[in-house]
Amino acid sequence: MTEDCDWLNVPAAPLDAGAAARARARQERLTKPPGSLGRLETLAERLAALQGRECPHPPHPWITVFAGDHGVVAEGISRFPQAVTAQMVANFAAGGAAITVLARSLDAGLEIIDLGTLPGGPEPEGVIRAGLGPGTANFAREPAMTPAQLERALNTGRQAAERARQGGGGLFIGGEMGIGNTTAAAAVACGLLGASPDALAGPGTGLDPAGVRHKAEVIERALALHAEAGDSALEWLRRVGGFEIAGLTGAFLASAQIGQPVLVDGFIASTAALVATRLCPGAGDWFFYAHRSAEPGHDRVLEALGAQPLLDLGMRLGEGSGAATAVPLLRMACELHAGMATFDEAGVADDESGAGA
Amino acid sequence: MTEDCDWLNVPAAPLDAGAAARARARQERLTKPPGSLGRLETLAERLAALQGRECPHPPHPWITVFAGDHGVVAEGISRFPQAVTAQMVANFAAGGAAITVLARSLDAGLEIIDLGTLPGGPEPEGVIRAGLGPGTANFAREPAMTPAQLERALNTGRQAAERARQGGGGLFIGGEMGIGNTTAAAAVACGLLGASPDALAGPGTGLDPAGVRHKAEVIERALALHAEAGDSALEWLRRVGGFEIAGLTGAFLASAQIGQPVLVDGFIASTAALVATRLCPGAGDWFFYAHRSAEPGHDRVLEALGAQPLLDLGMRLGEGSGAATAVPLLRMACELHAGMATFDEAGVADDESGAGA
Repeated sequence: MTEDCDWLNVPAAPLDAGAAARARARQERLTKPPGSLGRLETLAERLAALQGRECPHPPHPWITVFAGDHGVVAEGISRFPQAVTAQMVANFAAGGAAITVLARSLDAGLEIIDLGTLPGGPEPEGVIRAGLGPGTANFAREPAMTPAQLERALNTGRQAAERARQGGGGLFIGGEMGIGNTTAAAAVACGLLGASPDALAGPGTGLDPAGVRHKAEVIERALALHAEAGDSALEWLRRVGGFEIAGLTGAFLASAQIGQPVLVDGFIASTAALVATRLCPGAGDWFFYAHRSAEPGHDRVLEALGAQPLLDLGMRLGEGSGAATAVPLLRMACELHAGMATFDEAGVADDESGAGA
Repeated sequence: MTEDCDWLNVPAAPLDAGAAARARARQERLTKPPGSLGRLETLAERLAALQGRECPHPPHPWITVFAGDHGVVAEGISRFPQAVTAQMVANFAAGGAAITVLARSLDAGLEIIDLGTLPGGPEPEGVIRAGLGPGTANFAREPAMTPAQLERALNTGRQAAERARQGGGGLFIGGEMGIGNTTAAAAVACGLLGASPDALAGPGTGLDPAGVRHKAEVIERALALHAEAGDSALEWLRRVGGFEIAGLTGAFLASAQIGQPVLVDGFIASTAALVATRLCPGAGDWFFYAHRSAEPGHDRVLEALGAQPLLDLGMRLGEGSGAATAVPLLRMACELHAGMATFDEAGVADDESGAGA
């Protein structure tokens, strides 16, 4: 890596412990039994620490979807052909994909970045092109990315995080699209966690059990080929990752550095969050985990992150769709926190003494 | 019961199996791997069956909160004094309670019905008064309600369901407030399920372990006192239930009869749903379960209902708050179902053949 990636070493922004304590104290005074709003209380308290305000603003998400193709698809590890990546990028831009529907529903900003996909039909309008190439190399045979490609992918993610902050909504969601990317994410997670591909490889878009076994074998071979990555999270990301996974990593890490909360989506995004926390342990303070994916490897990654996701709805689409689905929980947590009356304000008795205001 | 309750025997409205099948077929054509939106797919399909439309309208909830006091509080089974019920009714009306904040957030209709609470301060405006008395009798010593009180509570619930339908939003949420009502709900569930109070009694608003043991003992005595209720769900509801639990039961049952979907809240509301399904087994087709409460008895009631709630956030407030929190999931499920492009529309290949539109 060149000096253009010095920013990777910047620490995460600090939290405001005073705001968190004031938020905690406020929760205890609201007209409800203490703790009875469950995780909606802790969401509000965490957002208070991140925004530096006793009553945090309901977040307004900015969604960036990173797309990239994967050379490892040549190994027969996906049900869908590589061409679908670019077709789905066009679908994002045209408004027909799940994440575009959800972005409209949430009135969220949505940006699509094609980091590098197989050339195909006409280029859709409204897509940012990073031009890293027609996809990664096949990591079953060689490193997925050159050092220069990794650097550009990380920097592209960082720039996206900065544009999101200019959008001003206070919440970053990173989605992804890339046929083959559950294979790449599983390989990265195996490299970082020293885990077996049997624990991380899953059906992705719909492999049968034989297909999942083959996928695990491909990852197993790749782990042996790239063993010299050793303890380097960046080297695992470069050798067996993908353009969009590196883009997410850069965006998540930069968000933590500039003090922008992140709502992390499913398996692929959580793997990028794992890389980001390896590069910068404090970054995890800025990450919320939206949902538990049906992709079985997600459990192992969440465990490594110490993450308790908000939703468990059997989703496994990617694109940022699970994160978008969890946004109303964060908003309602803030609205309850700021909008409910305290015991004093409402004249309600707050314990067995019967003594109201 | 008199003839005024003949409506209890009306069957639930039928489902539209054709609309459900068309919705299922549509889900298979949307631009995503089949099944990858998880429960958001089945939510849309169920709403299609209930609304009789391939693409169901995003529901707009109507929330009715039923309040009532409980004579069994004399047995020392709650941390909070009975006076809090009426104080919270005033807080609902004044806009400071959790459910009022959530109703504003969802732009939902909100109605408060005081079925019968301890007389207290000035009567808040905007509250419907059913006037069943200053609370139920202490069911540790005598039946909680007279037959006439039960009938009026059920009918009050039915009328609320009909007003909700006139509101036209297509989703009924029933909330409750009543100091002591986790004890009453646990007793009703024990009576219906033949379960031990040890499995159903929990901390409610915040009892310590000794308090929970005492609560279970009070319920145990009441179950022995009212054993003649036998197999009659209505008799258990009358003898150990509460005004607001009966109001919820009437509202849920009537909603199923008039074809109005219900989003069921936590422990108390699920117990009312259990009574409703005992009176009318088909009613359950109209019920969605919003969340798994932190109140431990909820698991047992959900199991008896065959229910898989949408959220598990450690909430245990009641008021309908858990149900309100789950509303965006139903809305987004409908928006995705209607708003996403099909493979044909988007020109995306839908399997390994690579053959798009």
